[in-house]
Amino acid sequence: MRKIEVCLSPKLIHLYDLQDKIVVVVDIFRATSTMITALANGVKAITPVADLETCRDFKNRNYVIAGERNGLPAEGFELGNSPLSYLDHAYKGRHIAVTTTNGTLAIEKSKEGAAEVLIGAFLNLQATADYLAGKDNDILIHCAGWKGRFNLEDSLYAGALTSVLSQSHNYDCDGALAMEALYEANKADLTAFLNQASHAKRLQNHNIEADIDFCLSFNQYNLIGKLVNDELVAEAIPFIKPSLQN
Amino acid sequence: MRKIEVCLSPKLIHLYDLQDKIVVVVDIFRATSTMITALANGVKAITPVADLETCRDFKNRNYVIAGERNGLPAEGFELGNSPLSYLDHAYKGRHIAVTTTNGTLAIEKSKEGAAEVLIGAFLNLQATADYLAGKDNDILIHCAGWKGRFNLEDSLYAGALTSVLSQSHNYDCDGALAMEALYEANKADLTAFLNQASHAKRLQNHNIEADIDFCLSFNQYNLIGKLVNDELVAEAIPFIKPSLQN
Repeated sequence: MRKIEVCLSPKLIHLYDLQDKIVVVVDIFRATSTMITALANGVKAITPVADLETCRDFKNRNYVIAGERNGLPAEGFELGNSPLSYLDHAYKGRHIAVTTTNGTLAIEKSKEGAAEVLIGAFLNLQATADYLAGKDNDILIHCAGWKGRFNLEDSLYAGALTSVLSQSHNYDCDGALAMEALYEANKADLTAFLNQASHAKRLQNHNIEADIDFCLSFNQYNLIGKLVNDELVAEAIPFIKPSLQN
Repeated sequence: MRKIEVCLSPKLIHLYDLQDKIVVVVDIFRATSTMITALANGVKAITPVADLETCRDFKNRNYVIAGERNGLPAEGFELGNSPLSYLDHAYKGRHIAVTTTNGTLAIEKSKEGAAEVLIGAFLNLQATADYLAGKDNDILIHCAGWKGRFNLEDSLYAGALTSVLSQSHNYDCDGALAMEALYEANKADLTAFLNQASHAKRLQNHNIEADIDFCLSFNQYNLIGKLVNDELVAEAIPFIKPSLQN
């Protein structure tokens, strides 16, 4: 069987060997959920950028620039970090440059040696699992966390993906074991459980419950997001599982 | 209500403010379990030491020296890291100097600014909870992990202590939330769950199942272990809860 590991924070990623692995970066609230939504709504490519200044410079190159810090839109940016901004193909065909508090940093730190870097979200959980099941590589799920700390929503995504891949992948990693068990124990009412997360509460204080609900909806999109030449692009998943066909 | 936070790795401890908090360091397999056992069996004081060389030097000062690396006894040391070595008051009245792969480092990193540093184990879970319930301080549970990574046994101890303290302490920390939920979901058969942990498997390969079983037994000792002037000493807990009296 191929292996899954889970890294619970970008501050721990240096402890893992990324060589030949597919790294799945996840920042459920909201960076990777927003990126998947953007790609599913026709955005051509997304350039993740570590800092605000560099991101601003992309405006001169006809990019749409999106910036968020501490859960709020960054000043002078066209977009913040809401997945809802991209619905109805609002930015179809455009290039986006984006910087966020946690997610873009985690993507940057995932590149070194990895065979591939994907971005993951509940929105395309099954599509990502189908793609990974068809690959020979071991997997490392890299949780973006909150300013280096463990967070609930990214870790539960790691547990969910581990669970969905249990036919093809096993683990010798306590992070994968614990998060799969936590997911299994709470999956019957995952939204209620995840609404207790500290970041969900922070976002609720900003009156963006609609974003939270959207980010916690499963399998809306049948594509993956993959880093190719420092840009995130969509790849449609050719074989649709029966569970997604109804 | 006072607050609990959980830090899942010594590599993340710099993200937490220790000021005025009581830090509970936990390394279930086996450093802190062994230290609590030693103190309960009459050891006078334990000096945690970060490296093997410094620890060896304590031999000249009539200390018993105990050393472990990667789960195995370190060469030239009188003792390794087994709690069973200290049973039957085998080292009563002695001073011990100890260095281990994860636990002693976590203790060292817990000192900066903390009001107090305790060591925790399932062996004295209720005693530690009783002590903490009587203090005004917020609590930070510091999991020693395995070489910087998350591990199951220390994290579940964090969940257990959070659960036991739920009358006096709450949290705004996803680590505490997740580990309490994981503990609650698995407490009916915690030993079976913990036997899946990667470090338990490592120790099983070294034929020390007896150590594992011992470290997973609850509330054997009614004392706490506290760092005083860089030495860990025992403090008996004056008020015994009804649950411990039978």
